[in-house]
Parts: sequence; structure tokens; C-alpha cells
Amino acid sequence: MNNNEIMVKMVLDRWFALIARFEGLLNTLTDEQLQKEIAPGKNRGIYLLGHLIAVHDDMLPLLNFGDKMHTELNEPFIKSPDKATLQIIEAKELRAIWSSFNAILTKKINGVQPEEWFQKHTAVSPEDFINEPYRNKLNILITRTSHLSYHIGQLVLLG
Amino acid sequence: MNNNEIMVKMVLDRWFALIARFEGLLNTLTDEQLQKEIAPGKNRGIYLLGHLIAVHDDMLPLLNFGDKMHTELNEPFIKSPDKATLQIIEAKELRAIWSSFNAILTKKINGVQPEEWFQKHTAVSPEDFINEPYRNKLNILITRTSHLSYHIGQLVLLG
Repeated sequence: MNNNEIMVKMVLDRWFALIARFEGLLNTLTDEQLQKEIAPGKNRGIYLLGHLIAVHDDMLPLLNFGDKMHTELNEPFIKSPDKATLQIIEAKELRAIWSSFNAILTKKINGVQPEEWFQKHTAVSPEDFINEPYRNKLNILITRTSHLSYHIGQLVLLG
Repeated sequence: MNNNEIMVKMVLDRWFALIARFEGLLNTLTDEQLQKEIAPGKNRGIYLLGHLIAVHDDMLPLLNFGDKMHTELNEPFIKSPDKATLQIIEAKELRAIWSSFNAILTKKINGVQPEEWFQKHTAVSPEDFINEPYRNKLNILITRTSHLSYHIGQLVLLG
């Protein structure tokens, strides 16, 4: 195992550990619990579920995996705060989207070779990347891992 | 910048960004707000503050930086859940401990050379480290970063 492989394993292990924790948590919560606010006046569980799918969906173009698959979640779960738009997506449907989408994202992440993780992500220009080589694909996973952990800390309050 | 330096920078940038976010948040919260529960029946803000100091204090021996400095926080903030022990430490005092402790930890983290981060942490034996080279010092920082993010997601609910 060289250092590149070690680094990639550390980052991917953390990502997948949190994904597993999120899914375990989601499975313990009922659709009714997801409709509740994590704290009085704060986001509902269902909003956080939609938000995580939408943010992870953005990783597809950023990591050069392809186009976003769920652009319909952008408006209600990224651009708008909770309860600002008419919520037409049911918890049951969001759970199904999460499952199928996360399976696809997982497969794509596992298909990346260690050295590819150090290539630039798509939101940085080749010129900027020369001086900012840390703006690579692995960094996308690092930042999204702490984003995921932040919201798991909130979703756990519904239990 | 070689890949080791890039990796260390990515991980340290994330850690320090979250530390800054936590401190910014802490500064906006009053001592009275810290006494409140983040959600009904859940941990209070003051518990999370003490918990984060105690967990970060554990990083000192793990990263071979020296002995823990605040063993008195172990019992009330790691071993015990919130409200299980008599809370004798005031928010004002915990804020002061956080500030002085975090300044020391920051200095120690910044003093580590990139290649040192790939050395084993102290909780793994040299024999195990041969087969599990990802159990290194950098991984301690990676896991504590997601721990910190998890609790920031909760503390923000007090605002």
C-alpha cells in the first residue's frame, strides 16, 4: 500500500462509514418521524433527506461521473429552505430515490483508481489547478463527508 | 507540492475550517443559550462544549503530543451522558479551557511535518501497523473532524 492508496482508503472509509450510519438511522425512523422538525422551528427530517440526495447528486458532475440525476430536488432542497416550497415529494419516494441513487454513486466512487482521486474536479480550471492541486476529486469527498456528518448529528435527534 | 503535502493540507484545512466555525458559533451563543438542550430531552450546549474539549484532549496522547491536560473532563463529558453527574463547571470556565487548550492543540498540529502524519498513532502496535498503515496520525484528525462536524450540526440549533 503506497501513501496514495492509504490516503484514498482513509477518506473512502470515512465516507462509507457515515453513509452506513445514515442509512441505519434512516431505517429506524418512520415516515411520521421524518415529518418532524429536528428541533423546534428547525428543518424537518424529510428536508434533510432530500437535501442530502440533492447535494450528493451534485457530486456526479463535480467528480466527472456524469450529469445530475435528480435536478428536480435542487429547487426544494438546496435553493429553498425547508417549508418555503410546496412539498410534493413523499418520504417513501425520497427513501426510494436515496437507495437507488446511493447505489449508483457508491459504484462510481468504488470505480475510481487511487491516483485519479488526485486529479482536478470539474469546478476548477486547469490553470488554477496548477497552483491549487488540493482542489482535487478527493477533496470533494472530504468536504461532503463533513457535510454528511453535520446533518447526521441533526437527524439523530429525531430518534 | 507532493501528494503527501496535498493530502495533509486537505485534511488540516477541513479541521481548521470546522474549528473556526465552532468558535464563531460559540461566540454567538450566550452562557444562557449553552444551558439549553439542543432539542427537547437531548444534550445541552454546555455538555457538547465540554465533550469536544475532552475528546480533543484525547488527541494529545494519540498523536504523541503528550499527556491529556484535562482529565477532569473525562468523567462528566465522555464517560457520563449529560445531566448524569453534578455539573460543577460553568460555561464561562469551559470557554476559557477551550480557548487555551485549542491554542495549544493548534500549535502542536501545525508543528507536525507532512510525512509524520503517516506514522502510526499511539493506539496501534508496530506489528498491526505493518498491515494497517492507514491507522496513522492523519486518520485521527480525519475521524475527529467528522466528530466535530456532527456536533456543530447540533450546536447550531441553539442559535
